[in-house]
Amino acid sequence: MKQSNDAFPSRLKESEDRVEPFIRTDPVVHSGNEYRWHGPLDEVALSKYERDGFLWFKGFFNQERMAPFFDELREMSQDKEMLASDQVIQDPNTGDIRSVFAMHELSDHFSRLTRDPRILGMVRQLLGSEVYIHQSRINDKLGFEGSGFYWHSDFETWHSEDGMPRMRSVSASLMLTDNNEFNGPLMLIPGSHHYFIPCVGETPDLNWQESLKAQRLGVPDQKALAMMANRGGIQAPKGPAGSLMLFEGNTLHASNLNMSPWPRSNLFFVYNSVDNLLKEPYAAKSERPDFLGARKNTAPLTMHDDFPELA
Amino acid sequence: MKQSNDAFPSRLKESEDRVEPFIRTDPVVHSGNEYRWHGPLDEVALSKYERDGFLWFKGFFNQERMAPFFDELREMSQDKEMLASDQVIQDPNTGDIRSVFAMHELSDHFSRLTRDPRILGMVRQLLGSEVYIHQSRINDKLGFEGSGFYWHSDFETWHSEDGMPRMRSVSASLMLTDNNEFNGPLMLIPGSHHYFIPCVGETPDLNWQESLKAQRLGVPDQKALAMMANRGGIQAPKGPAGSLMLFEGNTLHASNLNMSPWPRSNLFFVYNSVDNLLKEPYAAKSERPDFLGARKNTAPLTMHDDFPELA
Repeated sequence: MKQSNDAFPSRLKESEDRVEPFIRTDPVVHSGNEYRWHGPLDEVALSKYERDGFLWFKGFFNQERMAPFFDELREMSQDKEMLASDQVIQDPNTGDIRSVFAMHELSDHFSRLTRDPRILGMVRQLLGSEVYIHQSRINDKLGFEGSGFYWHSDFETWHSEDGMPRMRSVSASLMLTDNNEFNGPLMLIPGSHHYFIPCVGETPDLNWQESLKAQRLGVPDQKALAMMANRGGIQAPKGPAGSLMLFEGNTLHASNLNMSPWPRSNLFFVYNSVDNLLKEPYAAKSERPDFLGARKNTAPLTMHDDFPELA
Repeated sequence: MKQSNDAFPSRLKESEDRVEPFIRTDPVVHSGNEYRWHGPLDEVALSKYERDGFLWFKGFFNQERMAPFFDELREMSQDKEMLASDQVIQDPNTGDIRSVFAMHELSDHFSRLTRDPRILGMVRQLLGSEVYIHQSRINDKLGFEGSGFYWHSDFETWHSEDGMPRMRSVSASLMLTDNNEFNGPLMLIPGSHHYFIPCVGETPDLNWQESLKAQRLGVPDQKALAMMANRGGIQAPKGPAGSLMLFEGNTLHASNLNMSPWPRSNLFFVYNSVDNLLKEPYAAKSERPDFLGARKNTAPLTMHDDFPELA
């Protein structure tokens, strides 16, 4: 249901007056409290995140740590009940698994990863509170595939379609394969998280079923995108499997087609502050499924210490 | 008309036995004669071209030299007769000019460029003979546009659809705008020119009208492409406006979507040896128009010396 006096108006009617991009007032680094001083990030890193909206950790984990996730994918691909579920996206041609949502609830290994002391420590510093997982998934894309996705802010969707009230989330993307210039790496516009860009186009019913294939709504217009890219440039960090990207939920990002024979797979998990629990969607008629925007399992994450080699 | 005993069989019927990629026997550098010793390229450059199938000249011309080509595009966009011609491709939405073919016949400025002593000198060295222009065009693509194109060998099309007998051509691409990682730069597979990859799919009538929009025929299969990319890697040279790419007509190349607000425009002109004139198409029913594969104007190019600042 569209709410009046919405702080982040989007999904505007074509006939409505356009709302120009505006500067956010929500903090980027939320910890003005005890969380700021207890974590792996120093003041330089916190300032960089504040300025750019992301932090890139090349080779954060050993590459060998990534193999078990492929094993889990293979196991899942044998599980017919699993394959029939909404939260599994299969390749229409080959039947191979392309994405599995809410992976942290299906896989102990993934769940432990989201509670890794280093990652969770950084995220608490950035969000200044306890956190939970808003969404998670594994993406497995073969070479010469992977359709890419156009520029967007995740927060715009989470606010409009999931009812996330404020900008107080951090996304983590962990590379399961090498990331290079030609296999469609994640691209970001530094500094774009400082602006909210209202988007035109009302949310249709069950939009998520289409938007998982190709996002057509919640896409900023070219004028706003050009302003952002001319101001901040574009970056596409490269690195080996095991590299980690932490990015603010409102940072504009995109991905081009994978034009190489080299696969591009990654884990994606979103932390939201426990002080920023979902409400009713701000610009959609009904909530999305729990595997896209968690409402049930919002207990604060506790650190998991049984990754000795990662500590 | 499909010819038997074709040295470069392609556009195979789905039902036919596949023909595996095979090593070319045609020379890459053709000048075992007087042409080898009279030109700008030294033995190191000739060896590099022989090995990789391309040579990149960053900042070959001053950027200021590129401006007149945009002026000519603007003039053409006022010319209604011109716009109605088959050789002009307009943007279906805006009506802006996207491509103009046979530009060297329309523009003195472009014609002189193709006869620039440095470029023509290099091309004669590579092809070991006098040369003429097989095809030329100007491409003007805005930011966030430009659909990109998938991996292909130009020679495969010129042989199959234009009747170009042997591998004895060089393509030149002159950048009118800066080329960067995000505006869909030309990508090449070094060394791929050493192989001919027969492609599956018969050529339909008037295929060129569709193939100018999106190439679906003459596309190597993924197995062959993976072999080439794993063997030679992928390169996408970057540089300012005025940079020049010379590449062998059989080198596999592609281009991704322009995900940036920065336009990507270039001039493209193909030199063919006068000893390699077009015959009947090897795998198509009829010839393509002259502006795509020249049959009329095949007189040897003569050097033009009135670019004092380029000499």
